[in-house]
Amino acid sequence: MSTDKQNRPKARVAKGFRDIGAEEIRGVRQMLAKIQTVYEAYGFEPVEQPFIEYTDALGKFLPDQDRPNAGVFSFQDDDGQWLSLRYDLTAPLARYVAENQQKLPTPYRSYRQGWVFRNEKPGPGRFRQFMQFDADTVGSASPAADAEVCMMAADTMEALGLERGQYRINVNNRKILDGMMEHIGLVEESDQARRLTVLRALDKLDRLKWSGVEALLGDGRTDESGDHTPGAQLSPVSIVAIRELIWLKQSGDLEGKSNSAILREYGKLSFGANSKFVDGLAELGDMDRLFDGSGYSSDQIAIDPSIIRGLEYYTGPVFECELLIPTTDEDGKPVRFGSVGGGGRYDDLVARFTGQQVPATGFSIGVSRLYSALKLVGKAEELNVTAPVVVLVLDKDRQGDYWRMVQTLRTEGIRAEMYVGTAGMKAQMKYADKRGAPLVVIQGGDEQAKGEVQIKDLRLGSELASGIASREEYAAQRLAQVTVKEDELVSAVKKALSL
Amino acid sequence: MSTDKQNRPKARVAKGFRDIGAEEIRGVRQMLAKIQTVYEAYGFEPVEQPFIEYTDALGKFLPDQDRPNAGVFSFQDDDGQWLSLRYDLTAPLARYVAENQQKLPTPYRSYRQGWVFRNEKPGPGRFRQFMQFDADTVGSASPAADAEVCMMAADTMEALGLERGQYRINVNNRKILDGMMEHIGLVEESDQARRLTVLRALDKLDRLKWSGVEALLGDGRTDESGDHTPGAQLSPVSIVAIRELIWLKQSGDLEGKSNSAILREYGKLSFGANSKFVDGLAELGDMDRLFDGSGYSSDQIAIDPSIIRGLEYYTGPVFECELLIPTTDEDGKPVRFGSVGGGGRYDDLVARFTGQQVPATGFSIGVSRLYSALKLVGKAEELNVTAPVVVLVLDKDRQGDYWRMVQTLRTEGIRAEMYVGTAGMKAQMKYADKRGAPLVVIQGGDEQAKGEVQIKDLRLGSELASGIASREEYAAQRLAQVTVKEDELVSAVKKALSL
Repeated sequence: MSTDKQNRPKARVAKGFRDIGAEEIRGVRQMLAKIQTVYEAYGFEPVEQPFIEYTDALGKFLPDQDRPNAGVFSFQDDDGQWLSLRYDLTAPLARYVAENQQKLPTPYRSYRQGWVFRNEKPGPGRFRQFMQFDADTVGSASPAADAEVCMMAADTMEALGLERGQYRINVNNRKILDGMMEHIGLVEESDQARRLTVLRALDKLDRLKWSGVEALLGDGRTDESGDHTPGAQLSPVSIVAIRELIWLKQSGDLEGKSNSAILREYGKLSFGANSKFVDGLAELGDMDRLFDGSGYSSDQIAIDPSIIRGLEYYTGPVFECELLIPTTDEDGKPVRFGSVGGGGRYDDLVARFTGQQVPATGFSIGVSRLYSALKLVGKAEELNVTAPVVVLVLDKDRQGDYWRMVQTLRTEGIRAEMYVGTAGMKAQMKYADKRGAPLVVIQGGDEQAKGEVQIKDLRLGSELASGIASREEYAAQRLAQVTVKEDELVSAVKKALSL
Repeated sequence: MSTDKQNRPKARVAKGFRDIGAEEIRGVRQMLAKIQTVYEAYGFEPVEQPFIEYTDALGKFLPDQDRPNAGVFSFQDDDGQWLSLRYDLTAPLARYVAENQQKLPTPYRSYRQGWVFRNEKPGPGRFRQFMQFDADTVGSASPAADAEVCMMAADTMEALGLERGQYRINVNNRKILDGMMEHIGLVEESDQARRLTVLRALDKLDRLKWSGVEALLGDGRTDESGDHTPGAQLSPVSIVAIRELIWLKQSGDLEGKSNSAILREYGKLSFGANSKFVDGLAELGDMDRLFDGSGYSSDQIAIDPSIIRGLEYYTGPVFECELLIPTTDEDGKPVRFGSVGGGGRYDDLVARFTGQQVPATGFSIGVSRLYSALKLVGKAEELNVTAPVVVLVLDKDRQGDYWRMVQTLRTEGIRAEMYVGTAGMKAQMKYADKRGAPLVVIQGGDEQAKGEVQIKDLRLGSELASGIASREEYAAQRLAQVTVKEDELVSAVKKALSL
């Protein structure tokens, strides 16, 4: 192996990726287990698709080109077929269902959790690998299936320790927006780009307020830095129609209203007779009756006309899990934490393969974002993991004896390790300290001769240093150093750890 | 979205990849949790590296070329740098340690579990994505660190329910083999290819027996199909020297001997004075004293001269976890299950980056293989997950009522779901059956009027069909169908499920 200096690679994590430490791994593990418990109780079954799929199966070829979309990591197999790393968990599920439809019950309710990859420009807090936790119901066109995933999302937030008022599942329907698009005349295939511009503009309402959105719907918007974003070039009449819908939310008139009252307001809009709009409203009504009949209140699940969800493939109800807990934005201004997941109905994804429409709906949690939120409100219960007790090695020939001490402690459920390096006593103490070990166990020749072991409390030093306790206070409660008989090792360690 | 028939992609999982179903997911989840518990008790800390690394950081550029090795999945980033999917968990760990050495304690003991990828030709049971569970100690040159991972591997097998005699950790040392290579004169840089040929030949001892290995060490071997594999072209004298080492194991003379007796036999070999050989033997002696002093017997951890471990990067002790449980090979012949993991010392991997040697050792479990083995001996404890109770929807307007029944059952820890599809009663029963539901709950207009619910036991039909019970036997023990008051739903369901 060459250690020739010029040929040495630089040790650096790849751009847009990150290493994950013990605290986050343990915290996320706990959180995932709680989510899983809820999904299992609901009768959803786990299933996993591989990380790599044929690019065409993911629907990620660029239009009219033989190359995959630049947004996905892709590579050619030895037989020339293009493969891609999954960029979400929904496209692989659609492939799985299309391939195995005969074997699966209808509807097929499943959940999965895993890493997904985006070949995009990384930024602060924006990584190219992140984890999602999805639940999907494939094979039901009923709004009850949409309502179920919303109620499951609400139950999940409560299982994670969030309280009413800290989270809310916001629900809307793409058909409402489709009806509005029809009303303002954006119906042709050739209007696709403008429809997207409208959706994207509406999705920015929180940040740009109505004045900014209005500019993006019309001639375009020039931001503070002078950058110009072209607009959708809608007529003033069309913009007024859109404002009607937005105004429902922005006016504050809906604040505190029940979902059914909100739906009545929807019905009064000037494009309230459009047939798509009417369908969408009816589906929301069905969902609301189920929420209401099942005892979910509008502070848990709320009909919200401002929910858009960017993805093109949604065809019906869309939802978003919003955390209302306060935090600050990049400029230090107080804001709500915001979305930690979302989803909706995607009736066309399986049809890509089979030609037959298979109605489907699902909900996806952004695992890192949810974990950050739970940490923020002190609900990310890290497993209460204490650093291990370290048994020092004073005499290399007696490692077997030290090992048996460690084993005895482990048998009693105490994390413990024997020092396995090659350094002397002083470096071993330093190691135990860097490790965060609460206690070290020492048995030199003198102690061995008397059948004794010494237990040193390393927390004393650090607590004194941080002013938590005076030496006297501390010594009164806990031992700093104690010598006990060998067979009292376990009880003395337990006492010191207050177990 | 185009559903134009010609443009439809075929729904198929990519070549060499697979989907994973509920049973395996739950079984592996349980198994991983048990391994984790052992590693945590030992004081190893979790850490995770990303799935994607710079190709040079993984050491996977082809010699003298600017292209990555064909064995890894690689792609170029937008800045021209090559990225690769990790092919094991060790190379990314070496990068991580080299990058973060200052922050980490020495020695640094960590564990991680995750998927790795090989761009190789798939075969039956050989996939291009598989899971490993690794534990490593970086920063200790002491044989105690090697011994620790071996003892941890043994403890792990027992925590998984395997008994003495069902598993064994086999230990050898690369320095023994290096000494042998020196003895037979394969020491030059230019002998690299021949050394590898020798190692590969020895690694095939189980399958080819000594006669086959002997041919590969000499002029080469022609197999039954007529294919010729070139040999290492060793002299007869060299082959006799190698046979001495192999014979130690093959003769059966070591059978039942203690590790220290085996080491004494090693010492009697004709190249027993070679200094590398002597070093290797001394390290094995140190490890054995720790095994012995810690109470591990040679039926748990055995010194075994036939252990090679193919990877080039090992520099000292090597180990393998062998399962002795009986199974059959492809031809139906009885064989031992074989290796489910292994590892060894790799003192040069961090030095690739830093130029300074950082001694390291580790152990890696092949998760799927271990899970298969546990299933084989009935130790793959699947979580005892019952399929959910299904509450049928007879009246769409009363979904709220049905939902509350489901909620009540869940609150009592019973998996339950309300049917969320759009089909009628008959299809709902079929769904419940396909789902494996033990019970369905039915409340039509008549039952509602009387404040009652009907509970149907679906297991009756299938047990009758499979001849497990006569209708009379069955009915005597359990209800096939019962009508109870609404507020008796939970107790009746519990009774039917024998909870």
